Amino acid sequence: MLNLKRHTDREYEAELGQVRERLLIMAGRVEQMIADAIRAVGERDPELARATIAADNQVNRTEVETDELCMRVLARRQPMASDLRFITLALKMVTDLERIGDLAVNICERAIDLAGEARLDGVDALHTMATLVQSMVRDAIDAFVRADAALAEGVIARDDEVDEAYHTYFRAVLAGMTRDPASIERGIHVQSVAKWLERIGDHATNIAELVIFLVRGTDVRHPGKRDA
Amino acid sequence: MLNLKRHTDREYEAELGQVRERLLIMAGRVEQMIADAIRAVGERDPELARATIAADNQVNRTEVETDELCMRVLARRQPMASDLRFITLALKMVTDLERIGDLAVNICERAIDLAGEARLDGVDALHTMATLVQSMVRDAIDAFVRADAALAEGVIARDDEVDEAYHTYFRAVLAGMTRDPASIERGIHVQSVAKWLERIGDHATNIAELVIFLVRGTDVRHPGKRDA
Repeated sequence: MLNLKRHTDREYEAELGQVRERLLIMAGRVEQMIADAIRAVGERDPELARATIAADNQVNRTEVETDELCMRVLARRQPMASDLRFITLALKMVTDLERIGDLAVNICERAIDLAGEARLDGVDALHTMATLVQSMVRDAIDAFVRADAALAEGVIARDDEVDEAYHTYFRAVLAGMTRDPASIERGIHVQSVAKWLERIGDHATNIAELVIFLVRGTDVRHPGKRDA
Repeated sequence: MLNLKRHTDREYEAELGQVRERLLIMAGRVEQMIADAIRAVGERDPELARATIAADNQVNRTEVETDELCMRVLARRQPMASDLRFITLALKMVTDLERIGDLAVNICERAIDLAGEARLDGVDALHTMATLVQSMVRDAIDAFVRADAALAEGVIARDDEVDEAYHTYFRAVLAGMTRDPASIERGIHVQSVAKWLERIGDHATNIAELVIFLVRGTDVRHPGKRDA
């Protein structure tokens, strides 16, 4: 009887481990997608953009699989307390990761639109933003699997840097469009790319806030900063 | 013993009813926020914009309460089969509703930026888009509470209309900016408003896809339309 219970516990632990592993795989994939999407924009490489768009299918499949796994654990294991919190937050995190994949796809679509352009201004700034949000995604998921609230707080802090980088870039693009009205459409496309990188930062921040809730039991999602 | 069980079943039903009710309340609130945000843009009314931003706090509070309620039901009732699916999907839907509230806040921030402008072109098109996405949010949540897959399919079908309206509007704004470079900044702001309405349509579509999964057990989230 005791052995049987141990066996079941081991299976249960293995299932929780699988959820963790899926989230890591998804995070790794979307990180790569962000890097490739920005490279496709910078090098005006429509082939790379198309390959990255195709790679999103794997992210989507992993989302569905992870959801199913979480629901199976909830149905069969009836987890309590911190395990229950872990599973319910995993259900929310996969949605954030999947949206990050979608945003990388949006960037790739702009890369295809921009492929015919002779040159793009300010691509370095996009690379800097991309590197920043990639590190946020990686750290947010690492914080989750290691239950590291301090690492999660670091992610949230970095979101302000991303917002600032976006606003600086926005001003620069706007100035360029005003100087050269022929560049307006191109300018709007690169501005969209920057905006989506900023949205990726928001999703990483969401994940980090869920991690803090998981570890400390304190919900930091809505700290009242929006009070009028 | 039988009476006790009946009593417990009634309590359990009441809890599921509370989850449903919270989602309806949240949906009603974000619908109102969308309407007010667009009115604030159209009438260049920064006070209405600020009041709407403040109203987002209630949406955020309802999100946290609904999450807690769902987790309590999972922990205490250990729901199975369709109830389990209902609760896990409710956990995902509140996230979509909360993001819709955030997008309405983004629109209000642009309304404040635009408040000093003498006039805005194409506000009618924004109103049309807003009415469309409001109806999508309403129908998606109605489809959820009534477990109505056909209504959910109607929401998904309307998303193409929103996308088309956005692209038409985008072209018009772009043409306006090219004609009058002094209007570029204003143009980017109104284009952002349209983009966020389009994102609200995406979130309503996500909710509708979850409803179809709930009702039919078929996951339609990733129909492979992104295969290269």
